Amino acid sequence: MSASNLLANLTIVLVRPKIAENIGAAARIACNMGIQQLILVRDELPLREPMAKMATHKAAHLIDNLRLYQTVPEALEEFSTIVGTTARRGRQRWVVQTPRELVASLLPLLPTNKTAILFGPEDTGLTNDDLMHCQHNCAIPTAEFSSLNLAQAVAIVCYELYYGIIQDTKDMTICPQLASSFELESMYRFIEKALREIQFIEEASRDHWMNNIRRLITRQTLTSKETNIIRGICKKFLQYRKT
Amino acid sequence: MSASNLLANLTIVLVRPKIAENIGAAARIACNMGIQQLILVRDELPLREPMAKMATHKAAHLIDNLRLYQTVPEALEEFSTIVGTTARRGRQRWVVQTPRELVASLLPLLPTNKTAILFGPEDTGLTNDDLMHCQHNCAIPTAEFSSLNLAQAVAIVCYELYYGIIQDTKDMTICPQLASSFELESMYRFIEKALREIQFIEEASRDHWMNNIRRLITRQTLTSKETNIIRGICKKFLQYRKT
Repeated sequence: MSASNLLANLTIVLVRPKIAENIGAAARIACNMGIQQLILVRDELPLREPMAKMATHKAAHLIDNLRLYQTVPEALEEFSTIVGTTARRGRQRWVVQTPRELVASLLPLLPTNKTAILFGPEDTGLTNDDLMHCQHNCAIPTAEFSSLNLAQAVAIVCYELYYGIIQDTKDMTICPQLASSFELESMYRFIEKALREIQFIEEASRDHWMNNIRRLITRQTLTSKETNIIRGICKKFLQYRKT
Repeated sequence: MSASNLLANLTIVLVRPKIAENIGAAARIACNMGIQQLILVRDELPLREPMAKMATHKAAHLIDNLRLYQTVPEALEEFSTIVGTTARRGRQRWVVQTPRELVASLLPLLPTNKTAILFGPEDTGLTNDDLMHCQHNCAIPTAEFSSLNLAQAVAIVCYELYYGIIQDTKDMTICPQLASSFELESMYRFIEKALREIQFIEEASRDHWMNNIRRLITRQTLTSKETNIIRGICKKFLQYRKT
């Protein structure tokens, strides 16, 4: 598969960015690195001018074609591989890869999976809720001062993606079609229903347990078929209780 | 030799940058990547405020300790390894390395050589005169649109330097405690019990479905805690049916 076909499956998703110039700078580096899809999760589009100025006219089309969503789940519906970028923290509750390790994991998935790379707001980063949708977590290694400028973080990750893709467009493992975010969310609804039925989860502890279960499941790459199996088990159970 | 000793031998040299904010952003990413030396070749220092704002207070000391030189030769006097960064051009008159190739070349030199990495002005890049001082030439690989934002180019090169330096000394992936085979097998027994109970699997198709479920689960890396959650759900269900 050609590099440009792989790059076409990559989308940069900026979640609630505050500074318009950073959106423009992200568009520019995405374009530098052959990535032409940019999504904004935000209440509204910022003014075009500061974005377009930083994008330069060569990447202005990314600003003009910016897709705007109000929420992360809406933005992610079409994607089957989702990456969250975070600052490095002392203790991790899940596996965190460097951009280079991430790209090595993504390369076999890219030919058949639309892939979203999420970047959080300048000051706070992605929330735990945002990260619940991500199967991959990526942190850029840094020295003691770990807070990166948003546009520079996007630059480093886009560079690793592009370099990884052009270095290795041959000799790739092919991966099956993964479940879409839509299929996953439908599966989670059935799981929750079943777990409520057996009182494994109750209203008060719902978020705690569902977050644990989401983390457990989304960390891996489920196929469409597998979400159907899990949903099927839950359905079968929900029928069982009625007899 | 420790990473910090190697990083102490690296200096970022910004040659005639026009935009004060780019100097601040370069200071920030240098600091992120453990590089504490920044040189400016320029007629005069720009206003402190726009530089300091982009540097953030964590990298403000790089702005305050900025060394200013009028010319490139003066700035380079103390260095024995000098790298010029350029945009990729159609025809190269000398060997141009990617940042990753560059870092591989620099690593053996770094312990004993003060090393300068030069970045040219935003609009024109380094001149041929500037490049005459450089033993190494480095270009960041890009798609068709090859003109990078200065601060993003500095980010990519600093990241490669830092990552290259620390990579030899430690494994970057942070991984939580995973479940033992014993824990996994115990979990599978409970899963099978529960699935038989709801007649999702029957004797004849047992291997087929359990293999599907094992494949789904073992493909990922479950933690001890997560096997306990799954086993807990199955137990809770097996109690439920009795009431």
